[in-house]
Amino acid sequence: MRTFEINSPLDMHLHLRDGEMLKLVGPLTSNTFSGALIMPNLVPPITTKEALLSYKQRILESCNGDDFEPYVTLFFKDDYSFSFLEDIKDEIIAIKLYPAGITTNSETGVSSMDIENLRPTLESMSKLGIPLCIHGETNGFVMDREKEFMPIYESIASSFPNLKIIMEHITTKDAIELLDKYDNLYATVTLHHLLITLDDVAGGMLQPHLFCKPIAKRPEDRDALLNAALEAHPKLMFGSDSAPHPKHKKECCGCAAGVFTSPIALQVLTELFDKNGKLENLNAFVSLNAQNIYDFKPVEKTIKLVQKDFVVPQIYTYNSENVVPMYAGETLAWSIEG
Amino acid sequence: MRTFEINSPLDMHLHLRDGEMLKLVGPLTSNTFSGALIMPNLVPPITTKEALLSYKQRILESCNGDDFEPYVTLFFKDDYSFSFLEDIKDEIIAIKLYPAGITTNSETGVSSMDIENLRPTLESMSKLGIPLCIHGETNGFVMDREKEFMPIYESIASSFPNLKIIMEHITTKDAIELLDKYDNLYATVTLHHLLITLDDVAGGMLQPHLFCKPIAKRPEDRDALLNAALEAHPKLMFGSDSAPHPKHKKECCGCAAGVFTSPIALQVLTELFDKNGKLENLNAFVSLNAQNIYDFKPVEKTIKLVQKDFVVPQIYTYNSENVVPMYAGETLAWSIEG
Repeated sequence: MRTFEINSPLDMHLHLRDGEMLKLVGPLTSNTFSGALIMPNLVPPITTKEALLSYKQRILESCNGDDFEPYVTLFFKDDYSFSFLEDIKDEIIAIKLYPAGITTNSETGVSSMDIENLRPTLESMSKLGIPLCIHGETNGFVMDREKEFMPIYESIASSFPNLKIIMEHITTKDAIELLDKYDNLYATVTLHHLLITLDDVAGGMLQPHLFCKPIAKRPEDRDALLNAALEAHPKLMFGSDSAPHPKHKKECCGCAAGVFTSPIALQVLTELFDKNGKLENLNAFVSLNAQNIYDFKPVEKTIKLVQKDFVVPQIYTYNSENVVPMYAGETLAWSIEG
Repeated sequence: MRTFEINSPLDMHLHLRDGEMLKLVGPLTSNTFSGALIMPNLVPPITTKEALLSYKQRILESCNGDDFEPYVTLFFKDDYSFSFLEDIKDEIIAIKLYPAGITTNSETGVSSMDIENLRPTLESMSKLGIPLCIHGETNGFVMDREKEFMPIYESIASSFPNLKIIMEHITTKDAIELLDKYDNLYATVTLHHLLITLDDVAGGMLQPHLFCKPIAKRPEDRDALLNAALEAHPKLMFGSDSAPHPKHKKECCGCAAGVFTSPIALQVLTELFDKNGKLENLNAFVSLNAQNIYDFKPVEKTIKLVQKDFVVPQIYTYNSENVVPMYAGETLAWSIEG
């Protein structure tokens, strides 16, 4: 039976939520990943050291003693003082910027992406070497939102050449092309955006469990993302953007955005890279690139994958909480051993 | 209070379904419309005279004695004989062509849109003067399906210059532009495609009740459709494509395609044309154009609209059947008197 080893897999964009949902989904990442960059868009968002440390503690408690490092982040505010950032710097891996209202729990994000508005905080971050993660979408037409954001990425990248900027969950070939234009521009890409297009969401019947933000784009966009991932583009990292919502908030009128992929990500990535004859690049995509970009050494952890059927559970539950994973009920070609 | 009269409103593209659903939705059209062109995509589809006449009878029985004419249609087959079509000609207003599998209950549609494949039936229709209604979508990427179908419209229009061809429920500015290129090309447009874009379906939360086929397109497409409707383009007719599905098939995983607009269409159209200062064109769009294109005189019926709030019901029910209308629970600016 064929096997493959992933060393210290990292999920560089993850939503773990809080409360019962955290207890449900925390272990579904910590049992297979070595570490993950945790999004700060709780209600209220993480904007103080106290909230940050207490959230990190709750995450660690949810992980059943797994050898796992949560890399926590701060929710971007345009009025953070230099001294506050200097004080919190060693506790965080990055600061995440959301334009206000652009996605789940982003209502208190920045109301203007005008560079002068962002300058004070960005200048401090640049001086202190704190990377900036951005949800890069305008509030334009849904298929154009990321493309329309490109000039804003360019403006920040050229105004702050020493600031590391990560374009989060990119979905377009425009973003892939931009990656090579600025030295200080990096990106994460999700599992689902390597696999699906708008066709999978709304081309047949409507599939709420594949509805996410940014929305899946055109086939040529998906192909550009997939090629860059398979080649392990050194400025591109895996970030699942796994975003759990309870089943009743997905299968309803007014369904929430987010695809839940944590417990299937490594199996599907292995299948995808293997099918394309690029298994030798998977460790770079899912671990080494992130280590180089963020400059850290992760917890050592070896995950052994076996080419053996894995039937994805229909649903994961914990007390009153539940979440439906991508590929629920379907059979994957690779499993995680043990 | 301002009022407006619509004379003999016609819905030139309507799904009435069958059984309990027909009993629920039939009267919601027949009480305000003078007539409607009824789609034949039942299970099984309408392909015989017997099925056609019996369906027409069931429709009439559902209408509570309203003065209403159902213009029934046949489901296109590429092997209809001339004598069959000659015999059925006076019972139908048109034949509706579906590419196989393109939408609800279209599985037995034509498997190849190759003109030679369609020629026998189309030649008979052309000789007998039977109009052809087409669901014009390829099975390509969801946002491109209608645009990709344009060469097929062109090929049929130029090969059969005496055949009246109706591009059903058009959604793109490409289709609007094509309308003026061939004398024998006409179109219907729905209410919802004059109002919404993909943004309304998937730009915020996912809205299953606005999910339809063809899917709503880009803002510039919606604008082109709306302009043509407001100007009462003489080759463009109102066809609601009102397509009821029970609530549980809309608010679920794998939601069915279709927007239910019959009971609100005239009120919303009046508001839309009034808001744009084009009320004087509404009678052409919603009745006269269809009379000219199909060459018939409808049942005389005057519908009086009043500028008075109308709260749209959350749901319409009949026995075990139900359907959620567009704008459920919202307040419209115009009501139907009486």
